[in-house]
Amino acid sequence: MDRTEIQDLGEFGLIAKLTEGIEKRQPSTLLGVGDDAAVIDPMGKRLVVSTDLLVEGVHFDLSYAPLKHLGYKAVIANLSDICAMNALPTQIVVGLGISNRFSVEALEELYAGMKLACELYEVDLVGGDTTSSPSGLSLSITAMGLVEADKIVTRSGAKAGDLLVVSGELGSAYMGLQVLEREKSVFKEAPTAQPELEDHAYILERQLKPEARTDIVRELSDLGVKPTSMIDISDGLASECMHLMAASSVGVRVYEEKLPIDQKTYDTARAFNLDPTLCMLSGGEDYELLFTISPDDYEKLRNHPKLSFIGHMVENPSERIMVTKSGSEVELKAQGWDGINKNNG
Amino acid sequence: MDRTEIQDLGEFGLIAKLTEGIEKRQPSTLLGVGDDAAVIDPMGKRLVVSTDLLVEGVHFDLSYAPLKHLGYKAVIANLSDICAMNALPTQIVVGLGISNRFSVEALEELYAGMKLACELYEVDLVGGDTTSSPSGLSLSITAMGLVEADKIVTRSGAKAGDLLVVSGELGSAYMGLQVLEREKSVFKEAPTAQPELEDHAYILERQLKPEARTDIVRELSDLGVKPTSMIDISDGLASECMHLMAASSVGVRVYEEKLPIDQKTYDTARAFNLDPTLCMLSGGEDYELLFTISPDDYEKLRNHPKLSFIGHMVENPSERIMVTKSGSEVELKAQGWDGINKNNG
Repeated sequence: MDRTEIQDLGEFGLIAKLTEGIEKRQPSTLLGVGDDAAVIDPMGKRLVVSTDLLVEGVHFDLSYAPLKHLGYKAVIANLSDICAMNALPTQIVVGLGISNRFSVEALEELYAGMKLACELYEVDLVGGDTTSSPSGLSLSITAMGLVEADKIVTRSGAKAGDLLVVSGELGSAYMGLQVLEREKSVFKEAPTAQPELEDHAYILERQLKPEARTDIVRELSDLGVKPTSMIDISDGLASECMHLMAASSVGVRVYEEKLPIDQKTYDTARAFNLDPTLCMLSGGEDYELLFTISPDDYEKLRNHPKLSFIGHMVENPSERIMVTKSGSEVELKAQGWDGINKNNG
Repeated sequence: MDRTEIQDLGEFGLIAKLTEGIEKRQPSTLLGVGDDAAVIDPMGKRLVVSTDLLVEGVHFDLSYAPLKHLGYKAVIANLSDICAMNALPTQIVVGLGISNRFSVEALEELYAGMKLACELYEVDLVGGDTTSSPSGLSLSITAMGLVEADKIVTRSGAKAGDLLVVSGELGSAYMGLQVLEREKSVFKEAPTAQPELEDHAYILERQLKPEARTDIVRELSDLGVKPTSMIDISDGLASECMHLMAASSVGVRVYEEKLPIDQKTYDTARAFNLDPTLCMLSGGEDYELLFTISPDDYEKLRNHPKLSFIGHMVENPSERIMVTKSGSEVELKAQGWDGINKNNG
């Protein structure tokens, strides 16, 4: 593959190359890249804004996350935050700090991933800043979305008695990472070994190419359900439960048997000697939506194929219980990934 | 001074500490820090968005830019982009990547600078992302502002015959940097020498604590003048002229004798053996507004104390002339700082 050095193109040449072929898809985008700032017509709605900064060596490891996947996933993580407000994403701006280690072609890969996510979610990339960095790659993404004033959902509206609902299934993204890390250590010891990834296509896709649940935001709206509180699952179910509880001043009871897990994820966790429930509770990066609804809305959602009812909120804010499959009650803990590895490593 | 390690507070403790005392000042801010995303009511106006990523060792040198000034200036640079669209800034979101080298107190300094800028410009800090970094400091700021639909000014509306106007004066920020760099080399050779900064208070302030020209945006509106094109001066007058020309497909004639310079800046440039005109053309970081107006608006602005008429636009897009004080015509060149240093070093 050809390697073009960034300095051969210069800053403006690089930006022109990276933003090539970017089209406007949103009627709310009045002016995109190329001026001092982008201009958005909020069309009478409320604007929702979220930002993330990703740093090489902390949030991603380029030795097993291809640049295209990194770009895709970085966009998705931000769109997911917009969904968590019950809004639909419309625009992003991108800040990119890059060292000379990266060729123009490598950055085009990164942008290809971001553009693909934008295309699939009909989001416009409307601005950015591309700059050099002494070492490594930094990627800052700010996402914007629109929502009608009366449909905004924050973390703070859950009431005792509200039902706790989660979309999709949990733990797969974490197991995908475990597979990648295992292959990396195998590769270090025996660089000629063939990676064993075929069996894990689904969980690898969950790790490398997650999705933002704009479909759930649309379907809830179509069904006439406005959640009382909502958050997206980036750090793991248990941790996100704590956020909803703290913001809403309520407690929670979660039922282990109700937690949604894919069969392959379950089997892989077992094969890796990991507790599947712990992967669901603390794995993170699922980008599913976790929300509460009034019991009055239960009938509207009870048979929804993408949703699981996993518990309910209780009066006492210090009650944080998981009822296990055997019927005993344990405290719900937000351990994070480190916790899992310490428990099982 | 006490040193608190970041890990002693943890991510959430750190964020709570840094965002302490942040108040909402804008009626358009419905929800600030603490949820998945901020919520903004655009109040029937258009939303303008700009983003910057600043990387240690590229955009700033902490050995002579104190963290508080860095925070202040980083916000100002973004607000200036919003002004350049003829909008008034209303909100920012901040992404911060930090290595363990920084104490909690150091980050509080950085935030103090950002908060001060927000306070003075009545801008709300509504969200952010704080994360660790293997080395150095990365600071991503996305600024938002509001403007009535019919008042947006881009770079592309200049016509032949339009007058070229600049606010304030030019070259001081660049000279401030020269003074700081000189003191840094003196310090390296003789660490006990007293820095000679007192005489340079004004130009140092222009470098370390620049201002965004929201006042000009307001005054143009009050005077009923809508520029035909506008940009802010971050890279130097000459470079910004080129951007207006390219976007508007016109040429430019600039008159050297009309370029506004502060007397102290002029004297310091001479003392440093630098050409004051070159400092104005290529110095950068002035954050003044450069704009074009229809000749019909000349009378409304001709006696404005903050504005200088420095030239006019011409039909031929390849004409880029500076008429020197001696009356000769030279090509206007965008050299950037490197150019200055090469020319004079």
